[in-house]
Amino acid sequence: MLLGALEAGGTKMVLAIGNENGEILEQISIPTETPDITLPKIIDYFKDKNIEALGIGSFGPIDLDRSSKTYGYITSTPKLPWINCDIAGILGKSLGIPVGFDTDVNGSALGEATWGSTKGLASSIYITIGTGVGVGVYQNGKLLHGMLHPEAGHVLLSRHPEDTFTGVCPYHAQCLEGLASGPSIEKRWGKKAYELGADHKAWEFEAYYIAQALVGYILTLSPHRIVLGGGVMHQTQLFPMVREQVTALINGYLKTPQLDDMDHYIVPAALNDNQGIMGCIKLALMELEENSRN
Amino acid sequence: MLLGALEAGGTKMVLAIGNENGEILEQISIPTETPDITLPKIIDYFKDKNIEALGIGSFGPIDLDRSSKTYGYITSTPKLPWINCDIAGILGKSLGIPVGFDTDVNGSALGEATWGSTKGLASSIYITIGTGVGVGVYQNGKLLHGMLHPEAGHVLLSRHPEDTFTGVCPYHAQCLEGLASGPSIEKRWGKKAYELGADHKAWEFEAYYIAQALVGYILTLSPHRIVLGGGVMHQTQLFPMVREQVTALINGYLKTPQLDDMDHYIVPAALNDNQGIMGCIKLALMELEENSRN
Repeated sequence: MLLGALEAGGTKMVLAIGNENGEILEQISIPTETPDITLPKIIDYFKDKNIEALGIGSFGPIDLDRSSKTYGYITSTPKLPWINCDIAGILGKSLGIPVGFDTDVNGSALGEATWGSTKGLASSIYITIGTGVGVGVYQNGKLLHGMLHPEAGHVLLSRHPEDTFTGVCPYHAQCLEGLASGPSIEKRWGKKAYELGADHKAWEFEAYYIAQALVGYILTLSPHRIVLGGGVMHQTQLFPMVREQVTALINGYLKTPQLDDMDHYIVPAALNDNQGIMGCIKLALMELEENSRN
Repeated sequence: MLLGALEAGGTKMVLAIGNENGEILEQISIPTETPDITLPKIIDYFKDKNIEALGIGSFGPIDLDRSSKTYGYITSTPKLPWINCDIAGILGKSLGIPVGFDTDVNGSALGEATWGSTKGLASSIYITIGTGVGVGVYQNGKLLHGMLHPEAGHVLLSRHPEDTFTGVCPYHAQCLEGLASGPSIEKRWGKKAYELGADHKAWEFEAYYIAQALVGYILTLSPHRIVLGGGVMHQTQLFPMVREQVTALINGYLKTPQLDDMDHYIVPAALNDNQGIMGCIKLALMELEENSRN
């Protein structure tokens, strides 16, 4: 079975054809311009590929409430031309196929939970730390939605006592994205993350903030495993530092076999940065299953 | 249909008989002593009441993993005689009926979601702020479990700049329970919460800490509504203060109709402190439905 996958990002769109085993058969990438320019290009790519459904993992915020008039829309995004764009509806109607739709980071959570490092677990979360910070939540075969969807990249944190940097988030003086995203590292230290040595002070701050956020997610969601992905997490020296801080902050309050085995509790993504697009393939597959039930 | 309900607390056990409409027909309360003393009393109460199932909302931590050998147990509780007590198994076997089992605060979340202030909503959370702080999470007809269950009363917070009190949590210097539970108020101010005036400085600190925690839950779980219960929340002057702080901390980042209507987003419990025991009735009912499916 052929399935389409679209990872819709603020700067680029990744388009792929895959199958029900998560194998990617072909993939291209195009810049994200305006909907008028970009959506026709996406339709052109998919229209003669014989795909049975399309899965979209999109930048947001997006409307995931199936009872809403604006289900499938990108809503109040800072990417102005995309405000109130009915991306799922337009692509579904133009291609005449079912469309699965979720956030980009829920897509990555789903990719890892289906074929990656959280495969087989009842619950897991995926956190991307890069240009922005996002959190996807997988529970018992589904992705978590609610009033909106998780926006847990903006959880509020305590400032590191030695950190005088004001953060890059325009909304929050002390949130994870503002203090620990790639742009915050670059603005604080005047260099990009990959230009700093592995023993740079930056990583102490970074581990401190990431660990605080993870402890909040663990206490609130109790995931069976946590995957850390995104550009910043290519700095693999962060993993042991984050694990150590998480253990220190929980301080023995929670006792589970998973937390006793931190090396397998907080882990890198396993799908070579394909977790997002593979998750979109799974979104397509889940939408087909959903349709066959109704 | 008659259903049994047991709200198992660390100091007292509330036992009730109800029906499928959540009506409580009779109710008693006994002190929580040791399992050897207390469990036989519970069995005696329920054994000739013709109940079809029993629902238990228990203090914890508890084991909610149905595939686990210790499913239905109270596990590593500080109430030493109850460590590794198979409360659900013993009561189920002795009474010969199905037993629904969850945390006390998940029980309250379920009670409110079924018959109270979050009835009809797809997702909600219930937070009790009293002797301890606990959080129950309801999503699409189910209560959230994971590796364990939410323990979000211990989320880490930033300290109020004027608050020099060290907190009462033995594990965390700056968690919600440590800084905002009833005992923390009493220890910080030398008086019980209800002895402080409605304009006491205590409530400014309290609203500051509760609001920080709520913002974390909103960003992580995105509930459709939040219920605040427990003894401390009988101080109703806290509600407008918490709503104001939550709005200030989110600072326009999330835009939803629910957040635009804070008076109906953060609300008191609606079931006159019967949300817990009514939730246990619903747990019994859900277990019967679960059994009839299998």
